[in-house]
Amino acid sequence: VAPIVTDAFADRLIRRVRALGHPLCVGIDPHLELLPRTFRHGGMAAGDLATARAVESFCLALLARVAGRVAAVKPQSACFERLGPAGIAVLARVMDEARRAGLLVILDAKRSDIGSTAASYASAYLAADAPMRADALTVSPYLGLDSLEPFFAAAHAGAAGVFVLLRTSNPGAVDLQDLVVRERPVYRRLADLLQPLALKLRGPSSEWSGLGVVVGATWPEESRRVREWLPGSLFLVPGFGAQGASASDAVAGFVRGPTGQLEGGVVNASRAIGFPEGCDDGSAQAWERAVDEALRSAIEQLGEAVAG
Amino acid sequence: VAPIVTDAFADRLIRRVRALGHPLCVGIDPHLELLPRTFRHGGMAAGDLATARAVESFCLALLARVAGRVAAVKPQSACFERLGPAGIAVLARVMDEARRAGLLVILDAKRSDIGSTAASYASAYLAADAPMRADALTVSPYLGLDSLEPFFAAAHAGAAGVFVLLRTSNPGAVDLQDLVVRERPVYRRLADLLQPLALKLRGPSSEWSGLGVVVGATWPEESRRVREWLPGSLFLVPGFGAQGASASDAVAGFVRGPTGQLEGGVVNASRAIGFPEGCDDGSAQAWERAVDEALRSAIEQLGEAVAG
Repeated sequence: VAPIVTDAFADRLIRRVRALGHPLCVGIDPHLELLPRTFRHGGMAAGDLATARAVESFCLALLARVAGRVAAVKPQSACFERLGPAGIAVLARVMDEARRAGLLVILDAKRSDIGSTAASYASAYLAADAPMRADALTVSPYLGLDSLEPFFAAAHAGAAGVFVLLRTSNPGAVDLQDLVVRERPVYRRLADLLQPLALKLRGPSSEWSGLGVVVGATWPEESRRVREWLPGSLFLVPGFGAQGASASDAVAGFVRGPTGQLEGGVVNASRAIGFPEGCDDGSAQAWERAVDEALRSAIEQLGEAVAG
Repeated sequence: VAPIVTDAFADRLIRRVRALGHPLCVGIDPHLELLPRTFRHGGMAAGDLATARAVESFCLALLARVAGRVAAVKPQSACFERLGPAGIAVLARVMDEARRAGLLVILDAKRSDIGSTAASYASAYLAADAPMRADALTVSPYLGLDSLEPFFAAAHAGAAGVFVLLRTSNPGAVDLQDLVVRERPVYRRLADLLQPLALKLRGPSSEWSGLGVVVGATWPEESRRVREWLPGSLFLVPGFGAQGASASDAVAGFVRGPTGQLEGGVVNASRAIGFPEGCDDGSAQAWERAVDEALRSAIEQLGEAVAG
């Protein structure tokens, strides 16, 4: 069992990002069909225990490559849920190992519900004594602000963070997020509702709030606008690398911090790191070298972008 | 392992509802603090294996009361996730037992993500060979239509159903769902986007679609409007009993079917059935009698409401 944490999530995250000099977060998305050959075992059917073990060894090997080099990892809950109960046991082990290795864990589970049910999710992932304790959790806002409050309350009590889906970069983001209500898009309305709550979750020793938002990397102009509306919220920026956004696009919503670097969140890369292209000769060594090189390259690009 | 199902979800659900003469669905929400005394064991801490066993025996006992009397049960994923990996193993067992007992399982997990991640969730719960196969799954729409399509595709291929959150009855529903865009609320826009897809998921032998929606029981006027926009979508109506809606409010969006009864979805009651008030003397018999009486009463009220 990991030690109880009392230091606010925003402070812990920003401190590590500053020390490392870049905001890279590595996604842990063990899609079965993408798993490198060196980890594969048998038919890789989702129900096989051997498959769960293969996924576990991939995730632990990836953690070993990234430990000490990035501030945070972002496991994708769906990839573990796909394996059934055995997959959740692997997720618990991976989260535990990540925290033990000094990595912050942002669990990407996009949970949402109302009242006591939302409180149950928060107890599962954000409470100090949660059985699957993460440092932060992604949540979905369609049900409204009262549905998010149990997550914020648990995050506050447990020194954890919450990232609310705000403006994503998939084509369907226009369907609801971009609808215009009295000259303002829905996601702006949501940002305005979140801002007073973000102030409450501010870490005592930095300007940043543990009430963060998910903002896609593809549209830098939008990131800058969201920063104006939510000046203290950490951004979780997915889509660096795979979805074609550049490093400077990805940090477009960051601001100059006390170290002279741009700061204000983390930028996630998943496939570009865990499944680097063109290097899978089936050996563990080739995969390790390719991961190290992909990491180095992503860190360099983001480091330059925040050095600005 | 349960047999592979090829009969469309909407047909299976409506057939059972017609045969039973009422649309009651029983929620399986084992909130630890509400568990009847006869099932409690030790301190009921979320991390204890004894707690997971206590929750399992409660859920299996509840299934035994409702089997043959209702068409479907709705396990609440959050309550199981709260117990960590052991809780997910219990959820798998409960879902399996429910289907074995002839109950349709609507897993209330409100999942959402994009692309291959949404497809992973769909593989986890909706595919014919899913490790946690449910008959239907609740999903959240904030990310847009493209985020829902992998769920619809898996549901179509696996003869399963999907219930999209549309208009809920919590106070925060006004924050996003009710925002008005060119004279129409956001949830109407969403309904209009869903309607062409609902036609594709229609069961071959009934008029109903496996692309359903979640519509809160509190506002009958809204249910009737949603029925106009989505004439073939099954409704999952939560909040009967506990949230103060009457049986006739709950079926306000139903329409007269070929049996002469109102039909068009299921009405969920959770606490009112599993945690009946004022009958917990600590004995299993008292709880069983109270559950049977709560079931009888809910079935009678809903049966009268659909007999109209």
